Amino acid sequence: MPITPEQRAEIDRQRAVETPTRRATVAALEDILYEPVPVLDHGFVRVVDYMGDDSAVVQAARVSYGKGTRKVTEDAGLIKYLMRHRHSTPFEMCEIKFHVKLPIFVARQWIRHRTANVNEYSARYSILDREFYIPAPDQLGAQAVVNRQGRGDVLQGEEAARVLALLRADAEQCYAHYEEMLNLREDGTTLDEGRQGLARELARMNLPLNFYTQWYWKVDLHNLLHFLSLRADTHAQYEIRVYAEAMLDIVRRWVPAVFDAFSEYRMGGAHLSRSGLAVVKRLLAGEAVAQEGSGLSKREWRELMESLGRDA
Amino acid sequence: MPITPEQRAEIDRQRAVETPTRRATVAALEDILYEPVPVLDHGFVRVVDYMGDDSAVVQAARVSYGKGTRKVTEDAGLIKYLMRHRHSTPFEMCEIKFHVKLPIFVARQWIRHRTANVNEYSARYSILDREFYIPAPDQLGAQAVVNRQGRGDVLQGEEAARVLALLRADAEQCYAHYEEMLNLREDGTTLDEGRQGLARELARMNLPLNFYTQWYWKVDLHNLLHFLSLRADTHAQYEIRVYAEAMLDIVRRWVPAVFDAFSEYRMGGAHLSRSGLAVVKRLLAGEAVAQEGSGLSKREWRELMESLGRDA
Amino acid sequence: MPITPEQRAEIDRQRAVETPTRRATVAALEDILYEPVPVLDHGFVRVVDYMGDDSAVVQAARVSYGKGTRKVTEDAGLIKYLMRHRHSTPFEMCEIKFHVKLPIFVARQWIRHRTANVNEYSARYSILDREFYIPAPDQLGAQAVVNRQGRGDVLQGEEAARVLALLRADAEQCYAHYEEMLNLREDGTTLDEGRQGLARELARMNLPLNFYTQWYWKVDLHNLLHFLSLRADTHAQYEIRVYAEAMLDIVRRWVPAVFDAFSEYRMGGAHLSRSGLAVVKRLLAGEAVAQEGSGLSKREWRELMESLGRDA
Amino acid sequence: MPITPEQRAEIDRQRAVETPTRRATVAALEDILYEPVPVLDHGFVRVVDYMGDDSAVVQAARVSYGKGTRKVTEDAGLIKYLMRHRHSTPFEMCEIKFHVKLPIFVARQWIRHRTANVNEYSARYSILDREFYIPAPDQLGAQAVVNRQGRGDVLQGEEAARVLALLRADAEQCYAHYEEMLNLREDGTTLDEGRQGLARELARMNLPLNFYTQWYWKVDLHNLLHFLSLRADTHAQYEIRVYAEAMLDIVRRWVPAVFDAFSEYRMGGAHLSRSGLAVVKRLLAGEAVAQEGSGLSKREWRELMESLGRDA
Repeated sequence: MPITPEQRAEIDRQRAVETPTRRATVAALEDILYEPVPVLDHGFVRVVDYMGDDSAVVQAARVSYGKGTRKVTEDAGLIKYLMRHRHSTPFEMCEIKFHVKLPIFVARQWIRHRTANVNEYSARYSILDREFYIPAPDQLGAQAVVNRQGRGDVLQGEEAARVLALLRADAEQCYAHYEEMLNLREDGTTLDEGRQGLARELARMNLPLNFYTQWYWKVDLHNLLHFLSLRADTHAQYEIRVYAEAMLDIVRRWVPAVFDAFSEYRMGGAHLSRSGLAVVKRLLAGEAVAQEGSGLSKREWRELMESLGRDA
Repeated sequence: MPITPEQRAEIDRQRAVETPTRRATVAALEDILYEPVPVLDHGFVRVVDYMGDDSAVVQAARVSYGKGTRKVTEDAGLIKYLMRHRHSTPFEMCEIKFHVKLPIFVARQWIRHRTANVNEYSARYSILDREFYIPAPDQLGAQAVVNRQGRGDVLQGEEAARVLALLRADAEQCYAHYEEMLNLREDGTTLDEGRQGLARELARMNLPLNFYTQWYWKVDLHNLLHFLSLRADTHAQYEIRVYAEAMLDIVRRWVPAVFDAFSEYRMGGAHLSRSGLAVVKRLLAGEAVAQEGSGLSKREWRELMESLGRDA
Repeated sequence: MPITPEQRAEIDRQRAVETPTRRATVAALEDILYEPVPVLDHGFVRVVDYMGDDSAVVQAARVSYGKGTRKVTEDAGLIKYLMRHRHSTPFEMCEIKFHVKLPIFVARQWIRHRTANVNEYSARYSILDREFYIPAPDQLGAQAVVNRQGRGDVLQGEEAARVLALLRADAEQCYAHYEEMLNLREDGTTLDEGRQGLARELARMNLPLNFYTQWYWKVDLHNLLHFLSLRADTHAQYEIRVYAEAMLDIVRRWVPAVFDAFSEYRMGGAHLSRSGLAVVKRLLAGEAVAQEGSGLSKREWRELMESLGRDA
Repeated sequence: MPITPEQRAEIDRQRAVETPTRRATVAALEDILYEPVPVLDHGFVRVVDYMGDDSAVVQAARVSYGKGTRKVTEDAGLIKYLMRHRHSTPFEMCEIKFHVKLPIFVARQWIRHRTANVNEYSARYSILDREFYIPAPDQLGAQAVVNRQGRGDVLQGEEAARVLALLRADAEQCYAHYEEMLNLREDGTTLDEGRQGLARELARMNLPLNFYTQWYWKVDLHNLLHFLSLRADTHAQYEIRVYAEAMLDIVRRWVPAVFDAFSEYRMGGAHLSRSGLAVVKRLLAGEAVAQEGSGLSKREWRELMESLGRDA
């Protein structure tokens, strides 16, 4: 369970209050507002605020005085046009704020996306919880051989068991020593009245990178989609991809027309290089083309054939 | 009147609709939502959307599960603490979106603030209105002598009349030729069926910098305050300062506790340089200090004495 | 001639001085350092400083202690890999600084790219030169009918002559009145001792958007390539595209391996949408596919067929 | 020793090569180019490239055709003027690139400054070294009581010894298990041919936050000074402050006039709040002022009196 009963009660209290607003409102997003969507073993992502909807994109593109909407189909058409021609600024006119709980090593990848606002829980100021990420057995990938930054087969048997045991034991021990250095228990009570306790800003350095942190993360829709196009991709590490997938689902609720355009023009489809396009033209002309002489490397050739649904 | 009856009706239609939301809502801002606040002779600024309130700053600073509020006074205290110690990230958690109509030369200053999202009315695509800025007579400042980028006395009599006449006549003539080149009237009808009309993206180059443009401008609270601290300052050009002042008033409605902290720690007060601080210490010790030997230039000395309320 | 003899002499003086450095140096870029490349009738772009070269990209990708280079071919391979997989951060490790002279309406498009540093010549502080852009006759495009923001046929005969005459006369007149309001000639001498002269920050508003301004513009290589991919594109307005093309040529001199990768994976090639990819697969399977039922709009179909070199 | 003999040799090779350039060059920075400045027990910061010098700031402020320099004293005067009036864009025209080796918990604070370019060593791709930070005994601060995010007295005797022993033992054990999970030794050789080894992107999560990482970090001078004003401040955590101090020294070598202006107008001096300024005025008028009724909190009062050199 990623949240405590007290946190659950705070969330319920906040969900119970509704006030009228003149702003654009999205019912499907209000439904899940503040609700944590569980990710990994102790993490979550939840929407804590949002600004705008599909028609806010249209409104900004037209710099209009009113809602910007004429008909839903017309709006969807304009949104597709904007996405297709990479007119990104109207998509910057929607904004969303998430509260995310995530392992520190995931947070370190995530933060490389700089065009967002972040407030992270401070371990200089507060004590971190005894919560750390342990991969599910089917995620214990071996080091990939071809792709130096990916995973291969899933580890089995004794090797898998040993990995899980080491991860768990080291996390437990490091946390116990963290408490000992702080001279505090997780609940804030003192361990030994005869000691002072190390400063929090120092003690935290003993915690491994699989410990959970949390932050408020606020981003505009254009930059969110860019983040998702990279992190919901199959090349992304599994542990960040599951967050991206949860957020994609939130985008689908929030701005369905933008989500459709994004699926059509960004996530689906394929980018052909100059040489790749030349190969496709020759194939369409009925020529037999082989990797040699195509101008493509073996890997590029294989990936092109895959995306075209042909045998490499 | 900066807006047309059709625009007025669109705004009224949008103001008439209220829907319930679970998000933070600010009644004082809802009151003026979508309403244009007139600025200069044809311009305006109006709020078209917002995210967050005073307590959203607190919520982010605490990375909290609930509203982040305990008591209003406690929240105000934390907000003052954050402002005072330049913890800027919690202020980035509020966002506001404006629709602004402004002269092009003002837009060119404004856009130098890069950490905002902008969608401007496109003169490649659409025809600009026949609306241009003519200063009020009491704003016709002569070139300042000391400050090379400021204004001195207000021009009087014939010189003033001549300036106003020139500005108006050139704007009228350039717009008339803009229509002629486009082969279109302002209302979109064709002037001469026998001509093709110059491309909009070219014809617009004939318009002077006092013509009005408009845009949607979206910014987080931290960057908005930074913008206002520079543009509501007495050193800013009058024509942008009046926009900043209108927006300051909007900030006061939106996030009153943040506005108070901003007034106390940013807009009020004074920054002392290293040498300026040394002068103040010597004065407090009862020493007689003169500009010579103070380490301050004459201008710095004068400004320090002014801010301390003493004769230079 | 876009520059004066005095400016020419300043540039020559600066080009004459060479000092030794331990930094990465690019001979082909040093050759043209400080030299204005003419663009449009009075504009230019010139490189005033740069940081890094092809191998700086490699060095950063490897976080290496030395030069990062092993062999040139190996470096080029890694650069292609990075470009292909959209690993953009290593390209941010090169930086270039341009001095650009350009019409104000071009500057207004250009500045929408926010991830760059800019210092523009201040018309609050200084007097603008009597220099304005007049299109060459073969650039006087009529308004396009299909594409609402493009150009169609070139205007001919009387209509063309009239456009050129209007643009020129209005620019001349507005500048003359600018001088009169300032009570200054272009060379800084006073017109009439009996008048004060309007403040510069006000008088400038009488100048049309085809007047030239200038700025220093500094950008990293990744963001420069993004700018060029949009502005060297055929959809960009001609008057900014010519600047982008001049800068592409500079990139080719500066970082030839990056330029090649950019040509292969960004500028060349084509992006297929999800539906477009499905069409290509069906065509490759020997199916006859028509626009109806393809999931593509007529315009998308036409553009896809064009990029595949087939009749629409 | 933070670097290996191989790294030392690579650095020496790079330092040995000088080529002529027409760009601005700073001899005092060339002297230390590529040289690691040791920080903490295994870290360093070293300059790997730079763009511009003091006169580049002046050149940009004037948008000049030549060097922008008239006389050194005149340049220094303009730089002081720009710093004092917060004209930040000319300072963005200088750029510097550092290679930094630093503990992960320091990297996590550092990365919050978003306006910089970063390439970090990838533990998805490569194996981290067995290097971790252990505080020097005089840095083992106890948790501060008043300031919840600071340090108090230095721990002594048995408590200090125990902390150091725990930090060291946990780091050693976690690294040993990291190697075991990877099935690799630090030198890349395989431990047990019968095992596959866990993917690097997973195994790294077992390392504590005091392990060292490294990155290339590139930033413009304005944003660097902003970073330094926050991180070279006494409120910053010691472990990041020592990096900031090393970089301040580098700034002093690189752009001495900017460094002086920064010391005078940013690092030295004091910011008075609105209420603080009112207190100073009353004191200067000879009034006796006490904290009560001053509008200042006790903490603000104490800090104001301290900065004025008076007893609280």
